[in-house]
Amino acid sequence: MVPTTTKFEFAGVLRHLEGPDLKLTQSHLSRGPASIESEFDEMFAGPEVVAEAIRAENAGADAIVIVCMGDPALHPAREAVTIPVLGIGETAMHYAAMLGHKFSILCTLDRRVANYETKARIFGLESKLASVRPVNIPVLDIGGDHSTALDRLVDAAAAAIVEDGADVIVLGCGCFQDMDRIMEGQLRERGLAVPVIDSPPLTILSAAALARTRLTHSKHGYPTPPAKERSGYEIPTLKERG
Amino acid sequence: MVPTTTKFEFAGVLRHLEGPDLKLTQSHLSRGPASIESEFDEMFAGPEVVAEAIRAENAGADAIVIVCMGDPALHPAREAVTIPVLGIGETAMHYAAMLGHKFSILCTLDRRVANYETKARIFGLESKLASVRPVNIPVLDIGGDHSTALDRLVDAAAAAIVEDGADVIVLGCGCFQDMDRIMEGQLRERGLAVPVIDSPPLTILSAAALARTRLTHSKHGYPTPPAKERSGYEIPTLKERG
Amino acid sequence: MVPTTTKFEFAGVLRHLEGPDLKLTQSHLSRGPASIESEFDEMFAGPEVVAEAIRAENAGADAIVIVCMGDPALHPAREAVTIPVLGIGETAMHYAAMLGHKFSILCTLDRRVANYETKARIFGLESKLASVRPVNIPVLDIGGDHSTALDRLVDAAAAAIVEDGADVIVLGCGCFQDMDRIMEGQLRERGLAVPVIDSPPLTILSAAALARTRLTHSKHGYPTPPAKERSGYEIPTLKERG
Amino acid sequence: MVPTTTKFEFAGVLRHLEGPDLKLTQSHLSRGPASIESEFDEMFAGPEVVAEAIRAENAGADAIVIVCMGDPALHPAREAVTIPVLGIGETAMHYAAMLGHKFSILCTLDRRVANYETKARIFGLESKLASVRPVNIPVLDIGGDHSTALDRLVDAAAAAIVEDGADVIVLGCGCFQDMDRIMEGQLRERGLAVPVIDSPPLTILSAAALARTRLTHSKHGYPTPPAKERSGYEIPTLKERG
Amino acid sequence: MVPTTTKFEFAGVLRHLEGPDLKLTQSHLSRGPASIESEFDEMFAGPEVVAEAIRAENAGADAIVIVCMGDPALHPAREAVTIPVLGIGETAMHYAAMLGHKFSILCTLDRRVANYETKARIFGLESKLASVRPVNIPVLDIGGDHSTALDRLVDAAAAAIVEDGADVIVLGCGCFQDMDRIMEGQLRERGLAVPVIDSPPLTILSAAALARTRLTHSKHGYPTPPAKERSGYEIPTLKERG
Amino acid sequence: MVPTTTKFEFAGVLRHLEGPDLKLTQSHLSRGPASIESEFDEMFAGPEVVAEAIRAENAGADAIVIVCMGDPALHPAREAVTIPVLGIGETAMHYAAMLGHKFSILCTLDRRVANYETKARIFGLESKLASVRPVNIPVLDIGGDHSTALDRLVDAAAAAIVEDGADVIVLGCGCFQDMDRIMEGQLRERGLAVPVIDSPPLTILSAAALARTRLTHSKHGYPTPPAKERSGYEIPTLKERG
Repeated sequence: MVPTTTKFEFAGVLRHLEGPDLKLTQSHLSRGPASIESEFDEMFAGPEVVAEAIRAENAGADAIVIVCMGDPALHPAREAVTIPVLGIGETAMHYAAMLGHKFSILCTLDRRVANYETKARIFGLESKLASVRPVNIPVLDIGGDHSTALDRLVDAAAAAIVEDGADVIVLGCGCFQDMDRIMEGQLRERGLAVPVIDSPPLTILSAAALARTRLTHSKHGYPTPPAKERSGYEIPTLKERG
Repeated sequence: MVPTTTKFEFAGVLRHLEGPDLKLTQSHLSRGPASIESEFDEMFAGPEVVAEAIRAENAGADAIVIVCMGDPALHPAREAVTIPVLGIGETAMHYAAMLGHKFSILCTLDRRVANYETKARIFGLESKLASVRPVNIPVLDIGGDHSTALDRLVDAAAAAIVEDGADVIVLGCGCFQDMDRIMEGQLRERGLAVPVIDSPPLTILSAAALARTRLTHSKHGYPTPPAKERSGYEIPTLKERG
Repeated sequence: MVPTTTKFEFAGVLRHLEGPDLKLTQSHLSRGPASIESEFDEMFAGPEVVAEAIRAENAGADAIVIVCMGDPALHPAREAVTIPVLGIGETAMHYAAMLGHKFSILCTLDRRVANYETKARIFGLESKLASVRPVNIPVLDIGGDHSTALDRLVDAAAAAIVEDGADVIVLGCGCFQDMDRIMEGQLRERGLAVPVIDSPPLTILSAAALARTRLTHSKHGYPTPPAKERSGYEIPTLKERG
Repeated sequence: MVPTTTKFEFAGVLRHLEGPDLKLTQSHLSRGPASIESEFDEMFAGPEVVAEAIRAENAGADAIVIVCMGDPALHPAREAVTIPVLGIGETAMHYAAMLGHKFSILCTLDRRVANYETKARIFGLESKLASVRPVNIPVLDIGGDHSTALDRLVDAAAAAIVEDGADVIVLGCGCFQDMDRIMEGQLRERGLAVPVIDSPPLTILSAAALARTRLTHSKHGYPTPPAKERSGYEIPTLKERG
Repeated sequence: MVPTTTKFEFAGVLRHLEGPDLKLTQSHLSRGPASIESEFDEMFAGPEVVAEAIRAENAGADAIVIVCMGDPALHPAREAVTIPVLGIGETAMHYAAMLGHKFSILCTLDRRVANYETKARIFGLESKLASVRPVNIPVLDIGGDHSTALDRLVDAAAAAIVEDGADVIVLGCGCFQDMDRIMEGQLRERGLAVPVIDSPPLTILSAAALARTRLTHSKHGYPTPPAKERSGYEIPTLKERG
Repeated sequence: MVPTTTKFEFAGVLRHLEGPDLKLTQSHLSRGPASIESEFDEMFAGPEVVAEAIRAENAGADAIVIVCMGDPALHPAREAVTIPVLGIGETAMHYAAMLGHKFSILCTLDRRVANYETKARIFGLESKLASVRPVNIPVLDIGGDHSTALDRLVDAAAAAIVEDGADVIVLGCGCFQDMDRIMEGQLRERGLAVPVIDSPPLTILSAAALARTRLTHSKHGYPTPPAKERSGYEIPTLKERG
């Protein structure tokens, strides 16, 4: 699920991941922000992310991926459903922690830095986070011609490695897709052999791994919210699973 | 502001705090949850908390207090307005950290424990948190007769002090009002001389202190969200202040 | 209370905070250091700070503020008395933690840096501390003409924000008074909208808030020292409160 | 790869994970300990784990999984090869951190507790670790009849949840296979709805995900050891990959 | 140096440590508390500890040990002199961290628990501290007949090992001397093979090791306090060393 | 014990430490790496370090020092023997933590940085570590003419102090011997009065202090490995001590 009203395309690009055991569908928000660049945006995306998660489980989905590095409404969605829900931000950070000693996140805007630092603390990974570096490109400006974004990303990655001690790079926006291997090549030319993580495909395969091994998030830790009046919102009801 | 559609009464109870320099007004949510007992509820409270914060600043308020220990939408509200916004959860934890070596929070339900532990981490206070202990009373059941709640709170507080090493107790729901001094007395009879913090009055006075000294939250840290399409919500516009 | 033998003037400057509910008195040390710039100085200030605290409670004070960022004898004073004792260092750091994501302290001398870092750890706030930056002005040289101090403070604040990631600035000496709003203005001109905390007035209002809500530090956590021989010091006796 | 000379069987049991994109092979150590129950054992397993990893890469493997919760020689193996190397201990802990707020590890022997706590610190996950609880069964005694082990594991899991605050359980030995879903059922009957992670299948699918997305560990962080004399060991040479 | 006016005897008991390279002298305070059981006591011991340290360096001492687990005035003394100054509390905790995975401190009174926890944080060792357990014996009551103290210490040590996960025990008062090996024997009979650290002899040998290798504390980190008026105290002047 | 096959000379250089209570012997590895510059090397040193430790205890040694900053096989060796085993890396870091507020390690190669950071975490000292700075000299190239190494070490130390906030310097290789006091002098000329720790002599004296006070590592924490088949290695058997 893409938690914006803008119809960023992921499933199409990632169709190659599909196989006998993995089918992808993608949805967007019918209400909420056009892009997510603040805690304000995350919050306004939340109600519809949750509703969409419930609809997905009711429609028979085996797992849900929220395709935004801010992981909007990740915990409320886990409270709402019983199938695994992964956010690409949390998943990327955990893989980054496994692939090296310290990772840096390259995010879109300066205003997101503190937010990712806080999220690393929530995930318990603050000691593995070398830095968060912005490249100063608004989400909706990433597109068509990637060359400017690419240059800034490679420079920011190199600075994160040399100055901040990172040995893994995380792309801090789901929209930087297709740049990961190109960046790895350009960094290797500078003598910096580090993995660059583009989280959406990795998170999709991890969600599939959870479904395959019949694991899901802890309902003890993310218990279903008690029924009560929540006026002003039409929240779909989760169907009993057979 | 009370971030629920249930009209819990605080301003009336706290009228005695008013004076030449402090006037209180109270608002509730026109849409959102009846009470806040999950991250799901916090999220559904969020959009209206933010809208209400903008309305308050536009109406000339000098500071805003969100009267819920979960501090719903605290950061988005700070992004949205320029006057100080305090949550009673964050404020209580910081005062608790100042009044002793370690504090415990007595919360309503078992399901809130992890949430308060995470919030302590976000506030940077995890090393000062001795424990979070639930008393297993839903918010909407606190009321009329407080004697059962009081007994459970005193027992939980004593356990937090003796077993978990707390020397300060934080009441984990804004609705436990008026029990703080009674609890202190009963704990003192057990040989446990600890402060019990009921956060709403303390947070109101702290917000007044910020307004009085002309301090507010960092707009560098909580920058105003850029204008963009956020469909499905009518978000009031912040007026320019003269 | 100002924990030096030098008669820095605070109560006069802060007279405007007084009102029907708040009266200020100020005392200095009859023995101890002329200014506090080392752990050595903090220690030599200690015995008289504690004696003065006991005298203040005996004289009917409702709360005590130690007006030195080093918070000398804060814990011994809490052990000695039952009315709330706040230090301007601890209080400033907690408010700074609430007003942004990370704060920096601008201190007088290079030799104080490690001391503030250690204090942030004791308060449990090390993860919120971006940096401590000295401006290299001895306390007793701050005075009359503030322009040099102001320039250095603004430059250090800007560096803390841009290089260290701070979004809140704490003035690291009680003597930098009246510079907070001027600094905010100069920083805003550089595009850096951050609060600058001058702790004395904020701490006084917080102490008043504690007194108003009848809260004090934990006597379980700061128990009264047992009577015993302590030769060479005349320590006043705390009177029973009616 | 199973890092023991005992031929524990994993690939056979996990054959069902295979598909068009995933083929499993399994190897054991020709020299080293019969089982791993100390840092002493981990160390004696190390040289052959590394040699075996180099042989696997030379034989065309796309990824390597070390099937022992102690992750013996994980870092040296990463230094030695360029294909991804995952340990089931590290991978289980990261997934556990994603599926709940805090996890507990159920390990074989009391003597392993400190070791897993240290490993959690190395992985940066100490704040997510609720506890490590031993069930006091030597590895080589797990086998045939699982009923005793199962009872102890369920009791230890329940204690970890209720007393230590865990909401995710990690099986602390690769040999506890096939017990995960049974344990989940028995815990659910006690009102404890938590995921139980048996790491080998999950780690295999994660290693496949890395291979599929062409990610590997950081060679900047795990650089190839410089050639030098290392007498007494015959270490295979890594072939250049085309 | 023993930082109390009570003349506890250490040098006599530890005379066996002397040799060609090590001579011991012992001093007590001429003014200050009879024993140290609060931060209040630590503070009143401070001025004379510092004066005594300066006198010791002037008299040609090669190193100073402050024989009190509270390490009163450790940092001010380091600021004042140039020869190494060790406290038995800090030294014991660092050796304890080296001899096992986690240590517990057995202290005299309940009121000292928070103080040792805070000191562990200052030393950077909080993650190695399993617990602080009081045995509830005032310092001045330790003496003549040690059997009650011994029983309580062994019971507290056993609880620290079994319940808190300690594998090293630190005696939390310099007066528990001669009990360390007896306790080790009694704990071994309970199946608990842990070292029990009585800090004074170990700290004396460590101070001698520093003197022998011509190391001392960092004067960059503990700079000499600038000359200034410090009224009411006669502080000896440090002589220039040739 | 020097954990390499290269016969670095320490005992000869340190002969001056000997006395009536201290005799030194030195051994090297008969199999293993020529020098230790990776976790790969540490692992290949391990089996013989452990065997050599057992031989030393059987030969009547009172304590063992592993003379390599990487502390290879430190924990397995402690599991294997009952006499104290110290590593110069761990010991240096603990003394460094005692002699100042923050320390930096000057290591040989860039590739060792992450390893020392991880070790500081394992020792619980991460908050005391200012930085690890490489001087880019392979171990086997340190020798004969020390002037290049000395210049780089002094520059790196100065940078660590001024830029990273260190006030203690740890030499990150046992082979930088005899440079400590020269470095201190050159740093003092730059106005930087910090101790420079060359760990081997200090660790030897600390091991002697443990032996003298009859302390050793916790066998509860480092239990003797259970007997089992460990094929391919001839591990000596520890004799019973009378």
